[in-house]
Amino acid sequence: MEAPLPEPEPLKVLIDALRRLPGVGVRSARRMAYHMLQHDLAGADRLSRALADAVHNLGHCSRCNSFTEGDLCATCANPKRDESILCVVETPADQNMIESSHGYKGLYYVLMGHLAPLEGVGPAELQFDRLLKRAGDGVVQEVILATNFTAEGETTAHYLAELLRARGLSVSRLARGVPAGSELEYVDAGTIAWALMERRST
Amino acid sequence: MEAPLPEPEPLKVLIDALRRLPGVGVRSARRMAYHMLQHDLAGADRLSRALADAVHNLGHCSRCNSFTEGDLCATCANPKRDESILCVVETPADQNMIESSHGYKGLYYVLMGHLAPLEGVGPAELQFDRLLKRAGDGVVQEVILATNFTAEGETTAHYLAELLRARGLSVSRLARGVPAGSELEYVDAGTIAWALMERRST
Repeated sequence: MEAPLPEPEPLKVLIDALRRLPGVGVRSARRMAYHMLQHDLAGADRLSRALADAVHNLGHCSRCNSFTEGDLCATCANPKRDESILCVVETPADQNMIESSHGYKGLYYVLMGHLAPLEGVGPAELQFDRLLKRAGDGVVQEVILATNFTAEGETTAHYLAELLRARGLSVSRLARGVPAGSELEYVDAGTIAWALMERRST
Repeated sequence: MEAPLPEPEPLKVLIDALRRLPGVGVRSARRMAYHMLQHDLAGADRLSRALADAVHNLGHCSRCNSFTEGDLCATCANPKRDESILCVVETPADQNMIESSHGYKGLYYVLMGHLAPLEGVGPAELQFDRLLKRAGDGVVQEVILATNFTAEGETTAHYLAELLRARGLSVSRLARGVPAGSELEYVDAGTIAWALMERRST
């Protein structure tokens, strides 16, 4: 949607730049620009500097591929983590979710995406060779595949499982089932079907 | 929500800065940061520069208070606009909506907000004196109040109407009624009530 009134060039450029954020359309971008310029010039300035700083100073951890300032991220450098288990996730956000469960003390590998052949994201783009080298360091015994339970996440998990098993590693996947605290009436049928199939004797 | 895993400082600062955008919570901010850093470094760089540029080069039009690079915005500088009518809107976005109706050829005044006493936004903060001076230039004959039809917008319109009428100006408000192309069944009762009250003989 082109604005019907002529907009000053810096405003146009800013709205365009904001639209590149995920989930931001032209209406939100315009609202964000107006808000920043009218009510939060300090915030705009801060965001500008934060972006520049992050672009220049953040890289990927040489071990787990997550974002880090130095060569090794704080998690990989932590001697208290169990080095024999590696948990493979799609994004740092997923990594944070697993960490907040307090149920995992091993290390991570962050794919930074999932297989999406139609969008041109294959094993090469996700650098599967790096993961295989990392998992094959002789210390890692088990790899937990914690990619999402979406079509892309499942495909990625299947593909990786074969590669990792061929290298003699024990491979597991997060359990599927009814979410904690949920009432069966409000759980979708697919989840119930999985929970039935993978039922456990008590 | 603090991330359970230690995050590198530039990432933390960036997520914090993104949260100041309207409508962006910590989850979206984190998603935006990850996306930019992983998939769109060029976009991050562009946004950083666009923000800095906009902060430094954009000001308010001395006539209509909208954003502009110079002293006068392109709309106010346009000699083809009817100088005898002034349309008062809350934001440049509203101004764009009115312009896209192709039903208005006069000039604008952009309040950049609405009265919200509880948030500390009163007549002084919205610089009503500037609007009164602009409307009282002797050329403007009619002021159309096109603030939103929300509680705050209506309050702002009522307040301004009294001030403007006291200065001998003709003041009008956008018509309320059933939206174009809508079926009565799906229009809310308040709108129907207004449309009945303000019915026109044909």
